[in-house]
Amino acid sequence: MIRLYHVPLSPFCRKVRLSLAEKRLEVELVEERYWERDPDFIRRNPAGKVPILKIDGLTLSESAAICEYLEERYPDPPLMPRNPAARHEVRRLVGWFDDKFHNEVTSKLLYERVNKKITKQGYPDSGNVKAGARAIKFHLQYLGWLLDERRWLAGPELTLADFAAAAHLSSLDYISDVDWNLNPTVRDWYAKIKSRPAFRSLLADAVPGFPPPAHYADLDF
Amino acid sequence: MIRLYHVPLSPFCRKVRLSLAEKRLEVELVEERYWERDPDFIRRNPAGKVPILKIDGLTLSESAAICEYLEERYPDPPLMPRNPAARHEVRRLVGWFDDKFHNEVTSKLLYERVNKKITKQGYPDSGNVKAGARAIKFHLQYLGWLLDERRWLAGPELTLADFAAAAHLSSLDYISDVDWNLNPTVRDWYAKIKSRPAFRSLLADAVPGFPPPAHYADLDF
Repeated sequence: MIRLYHVPLSPFCRKVRLSLAEKRLEVELVEERYWERDPDFIRRNPAGKVPILKIDGLTLSESAAICEYLEERYPDPPLMPRNPAARHEVRRLVGWFDDKFHNEVTSKLLYERVNKKITKQGYPDSGNVKAGARAIKFHLQYLGWLLDERRWLAGPELTLADFAAAAHLSSLDYISDVDWNLNPTVRDWYAKIKSRPAFRSLLADAVPGFPPPAHYADLDF
Repeated sequence: MIRLYHVPLSPFCRKVRLSLAEKRLEVELVEERYWERDPDFIRRNPAGKVPILKIDGLTLSESAAICEYLEERYPDPPLMPRNPAARHEVRRLVGWFDDKFHNEVTSKLLYERVNKKITKQGYPDSGNVKAGARAIKFHLQYLGWLLDERRWLAGPELTLADFAAAAHLSSLDYISDVDWNLNPTVRDWYAKIKSRPAFRSLLADAVPGFPPPAHYADLDF
């Protein structure tokens, strides 16, 4: 049995969930209250972070390393191209979202509005929220610029780069922080990825105290 | 010709330099004053970060993605094992250093003491410096704990994980922020990696205004 210790709105956990689902690997989801730093949890991952994946008798952590493992052990369907230059482009974009987008947008909107409340760390910092709301516009433009030339984010095929981007954007969409009217190309790309069977489990997520907006799970949003 | 746009003390650039040197790929180093956001630089990498590697007619960015590319295109000598579980462990540790260690230690010591001065962003925040000095002890213990069971950080062979760790620690050693007396196992590991030919270019680095301590380039430190 495959088991994922996760937090529903974590983009890093969502990227792993999307990879597992696309590869049709059935997984048992276990919510991890990582901020309580339970000793069993720290034993599973001394870094004190989710996601943690139990699979093939191993305990894996670090979402990028987990996704590479899944790709190597369960290559079908592939989420990476075969050519080294094309693989670099996928990894560059995964890094773009998990580092730059995460720092400039996700941590400034999702973490301020949701994580701070759940982990009882106080109120959102309005300066951060404003900075995040400004930065997401630049990122949506960059996505649109990529998608003007490409069918999927990293090239002609769906890859991990699309899942990394969709993981962040879907978490922000849950709290209505994505203006889909800004760029119709990005909206079309998101509609396409949202309608994949792999996305269903994400659209069914519900976080107590934070009901999702009606459009969140609507495929025709 | 291979060309790397870099900053001498950046651990992300150092990891790429170590990989290139270990694979005996000769590289022209170009210092990039990334904080001046020169338009040519932003064109090379819209993320506005170093390292940027020009190789094989491509312009590559994101240090993790660059190192994976080098591994795929120039596999000899290998810096990754072949088994997926062992490869996961390498990537988990690279993530540990480039994410957790970077946030808790490198950004709190090196960036406060050096980067802030070079980029004219003011004086070091003493709270950050203290937090970084505390955190590095925990990380050196963790390294020692790994090395008690293993010849190299991720297993029996030298891998990218060793280079990621040594890249951060060597940058901090340049400003005397590593207490090598804390853990003799870690000290032995660092002496071993420091004496590799691949390390020579790092030991010759000199940052104006920040002379390195005598022990920095000493192989018998």
